[in-house]
Amino acid sequence: MNRDIDQITNKKDTFTLGGHEFNSRFILGSGKYSLDLIKAAVEEAGAQIITLALRRANQGGMANILDYIPKGVTLLPNTSGARTAKEAVRIAHLAREVGCGDFVKVEVIRDTKYLLPDNQETIKATEILAKEGFVVMPYMYPDLNVARDLVNAGAACIMPLGSPIGTNKGICTKEFIQILIDEIDLPIIIDAGIGRPSQACEAMEMGATAIMANTAIATAGDIPTMASAFKMAIESGRKAYLAGLGRVMDKGASASSPLTGFLQPTDN
Amino acid sequence: MNRDIDQITNKKDTFTLGGHEFNSRFILGSGKYSLDLIKAAVEEAGAQIITLALRRANQGGMANILDYIPKGVTLLPNTSGARTAKEAVRIAHLAREVGCGDFVKVEVIRDTKYLLPDNQETIKATEILAKEGFVVMPYMYPDLNVARDLVNAGAACIMPLGSPIGTNKGICTKEFIQILIDEIDLPIIIDAGIGRPSQACEAMEMGATAIMANTAIATAGDIPTMASAFKMAIESGRKAYLAGLGRVMDKGASASSPLTGFLQPTDN
Amino acid sequence: MNRDIDQITNKKDTFTLGGHEFNSRFILGSGKYSLDLIKAAVEEAGAQIITLALRRANQGGMANILDYIPKGVTLLPNTSGARTAKEAVRIAHLAREVGCGDFVKVEVIRDTKYLLPDNQETIKATEILAKEGFVVMPYMYPDLNVARDLVNAGAACIMPLGSPIGTNKGICTKEFIQILIDEIDLPIIIDAGIGRPSQACEAMEMGATAIMANTAIATAGDIPTMASAFKMAIESGRKAYLAGLGRVMDKGASASSPLTGFLQPTDN
Amino acid sequence: MNRDIDQITNKKDTFTLGGHEFNSRFILGSGKYSLDLIKAAVEEAGAQIITLALRRANQGGMANILDYIPKGVTLLPNTSGARTAKEAVRIAHLAREVGCGDFVKVEVIRDTKYLLPDNQETIKATEILAKEGFVVMPYMYPDLNVARDLVNAGAACIMPLGSPIGTNKGICTKEFIQILIDEIDLPIIIDAGIGRPSQACEAMEMGATAIMANTAIATAGDIPTMASAFKMAIESGRKAYLAGLGRVMDKGASASSPLTGFLQPTDN
Repeated sequence: MNRDIDQITNKKDTFTLGGHEFNSRFILGSGKYSLDLIKAAVEEAGAQIITLALRRANQGGMANILDYIPKGVTLLPNTSGARTAKEAVRIAHLAREVGCGDFVKVEVIRDTKYLLPDNQETIKATEILAKEGFVVMPYMYPDLNVARDLVNAGAACIMPLGSPIGTNKGICTKEFIQILIDEIDLPIIIDAGIGRPSQACEAMEMGATAIMANTAIATAGDIPTMASAFKMAIESGRKAYLAGLGRVMDKGASASSPLTGFLQPTDN
Repeated sequence: MNRDIDQITNKKDTFTLGGHEFNSRFILGSGKYSLDLIKAAVEEAGAQIITLALRRANQGGMANILDYIPKGVTLLPNTSGARTAKEAVRIAHLAREVGCGDFVKVEVIRDTKYLLPDNQETIKATEILAKEGFVVMPYMYPDLNVARDLVNAGAACIMPLGSPIGTNKGICTKEFIQILIDEIDLPIIIDAGIGRPSQACEAMEMGATAIMANTAIATAGDIPTMASAFKMAIESGRKAYLAGLGRVMDKGASASSPLTGFLQPTDN
Repeated sequence: MNRDIDQITNKKDTFTLGGHEFNSRFILGSGKYSLDLIKAAVEEAGAQIITLALRRANQGGMANILDYIPKGVTLLPNTSGARTAKEAVRIAHLAREVGCGDFVKVEVIRDTKYLLPDNQETIKATEILAKEGFVVMPYMYPDLNVARDLVNAGAACIMPLGSPIGTNKGICTKEFIQILIDEIDLPIIIDAGIGRPSQACEAMEMGATAIMANTAIATAGDIPTMASAFKMAIESGRKAYLAGLGRVMDKGASASSPLTGFLQPTDN
Repeated sequence: MNRDIDQITNKKDTFTLGGHEFNSRFILGSGKYSLDLIKAAVEEAGAQIITLALRRANQGGMANILDYIPKGVTLLPNTSGARTAKEAVRIAHLAREVGCGDFVKVEVIRDTKYLLPDNQETIKATEILAKEGFVVMPYMYPDLNVARDLVNAGAACIMPLGSPIGTNKGICTKEFIQILIDEIDLPIIIDAGIGRPSQACEAMEMGATAIMANTAIATAGDIPTMASAFKMAIESGRKAYLAGLGRVMDKGASASSPLTGFLQPTDN
């Protein structure tokens, strides 16, 4: 729980990954756009971090892809395609070799229908890569025990899914995401399933550190506009979290205007 | 349904109430703030319309209150305290006499526990006041048949409640609010019950024209910051609506990154 | 609130409509079955009341239809097809003339797309028919003010809809149905929209008096089995309401088994 | 997916655990009742399986406890108190030694606040105990990859939680429980969190094989009545699943009674 009046008043509300400080709480996926949309999307999203599947980097050549990504944006290669910890580690190594830097999003997926991450292999890969000096951002199925293991393995943050990837279903795991936010002392970045800005906003109101989205933007009618909508929703939710949400009444109602006695003074 | 590419590209996305054009889709209630917070709240909210209970105007003197409200903001006196159409009409007349202008939010409430609007008396008051030249904005319990009667009575918009006033419960009436948005050709402004920016954002994604909030901001820890959070959420939801939300998958998942075959070329 | 230990212990848990006492809390609609399924459905449902559209009675001849309905079941003709109070009253008169008895379900619908009841015309028809000695069961859009008017008009119960008729969407109006249950001193019978036994069960847990269903059963794969499933779910929900539901914990958990210290005595 | 017309028509709708066939789909927890309530609860619940924490057995003496449990009921000792696979295995051995039989519910919990099961240790314990001939019923955090590992480890069924134990919150994990039901070829028994009969009914409608409940009944106002309510709800949900639920309409409505043309023949 990092609500802090300084964060409101100083307007310096940042978070840290592997010693690097970030202002933007919106991490953009790139896997579903054509390259010429990436630049607009990153700019509208105000993203400082953008994911990149290594295969894409290989196919196009890193130099080529970097032409499309604004300066100063941190590349986050993912281990997409890995079915085991070993494969994930190998992909991370390749990514570092082709110049993607030290950040890596660990994805290990052996379920081909729902594409749900394999938590155990993810822990193993995280441990190996963290020891090698990577800034490891593990994508995981939200499970408190696993999140604790990832903390111990040296993860830089925890990236629980909201719902199966690409579905735009929102945060089906709300109850358990809230537990992670309450119990884990690393940044919690919700990744996968968020389909609408309102869902991103709600996740931030709950106290999430940041949001990653890809499909919601890639499947929108107008991609740069939707990227901008997500940016605003995430900032809004963060502000609401810092400001402190008002109480919810279970029963009854509470008048907004002074009701009682209104008509007496003029009632003649 | 007024989704329109011009609204996106020209950045001129306005709506009209009684011949007046507005850019801001956030109507601010004033009933629960101290006067010295009103100015900050209006500015952070970017509100162009602010409600005012007549009693408050009477008590403080209109001149006094206007000191607290930024120039160019339209005052929307409400008929808070009215239990019948007749009382609402009388309050509207008083409001016009003390210089509040032609806008009036009709509220007729005879239920003292849940403060739910009386739809039939609201229709009657709307009809009388619309004939007298008021720009009538009726607060109503969301009911398609009643909304149609309000259109026929000359309402300038429809203001259905999301949940009982002051509860911060969100849009408990989602199913029926959506029907109003789909079927009624006047601006639909969701009023009452919206407790979080994410809920305001969702209402806008559904196609609502604007949002009114009061309690959510008045009960927040930091009032101006929450006003700003609502402003951003409403603009975000509007953008998302205009951009066109992506499809939701019912079953399965859809990979964001190119998964298949990734490891083959490098697998040796 | 009629929870009563006698209702549990004596097993005599009845409710009253127009002076008639009923045990079964399941009212069956008949409009969507073929005639030869009605008997099985009524028997499996354990229904004591079954609705009947007058047109059907006219077409087939009352005598003929009565062949299909078990003895002792109360016929509840509805005013389906009425667009105004006047039409509803006329249909009720016809129903009485052809021998359908004094019960009438008032339905007045002028919205042809969502088939939502017109609350104002329903109040008018209820008042007229109640004065004429009918046992009036008005189908209504759930609205507390309207429910109070129906009580004053002489209704024998209130029949709020759960969601638009025939949709199987469940209780989209939960928040407001609960208000009716808490505030109105007549039987509350949820009618329209209930699509699954679990939804009927939940409505009963909330304190509803009875449930009416038709489409959920008519669109099931096996009609008599689904009728039986609804019967059990309604009785279950009623029992749960009478027994008193357990508290819900907001955060944390509570061990079901004695956890602490378990291993100490045997730990050597 | 085991929907089968024979299951409807023959009324022989059973499921199998470790070669034993059961009719009742309600497994009762015993941890929260006083001993003299157990008998009434089991009878009202129609339970054929009842859990038992070994500590309780030790304290009271097995012989004593068996006095309170109706003949023919299968005892299901759980490994409550175990924090590792090793501890769970030891408790299972003790249970067998004191005469509890071959069934064991594996619970491994190291999180003391939310009491969420440790999936990895659960897999290990399951593998060891299954090899030793136990009928292993593992309690788990719903995760498709883990469920597959449990199948391979020799589990007799999968027991995913609905929400943190003892909370009565219902099925917060609905999305992922449905995936287990659709993908796993063992009985799926929902355990923990189910707080109302309607929630048990819904789980069965989704296709769950059976339900386990404890707190919901122990915290009810009237324990035997609530046990009976759960029994009926579970049977109802099973019937609804077998009968085949009707379709849900997304928009619009569908008349239950023949509306069109009703008034023409008599309209003169």
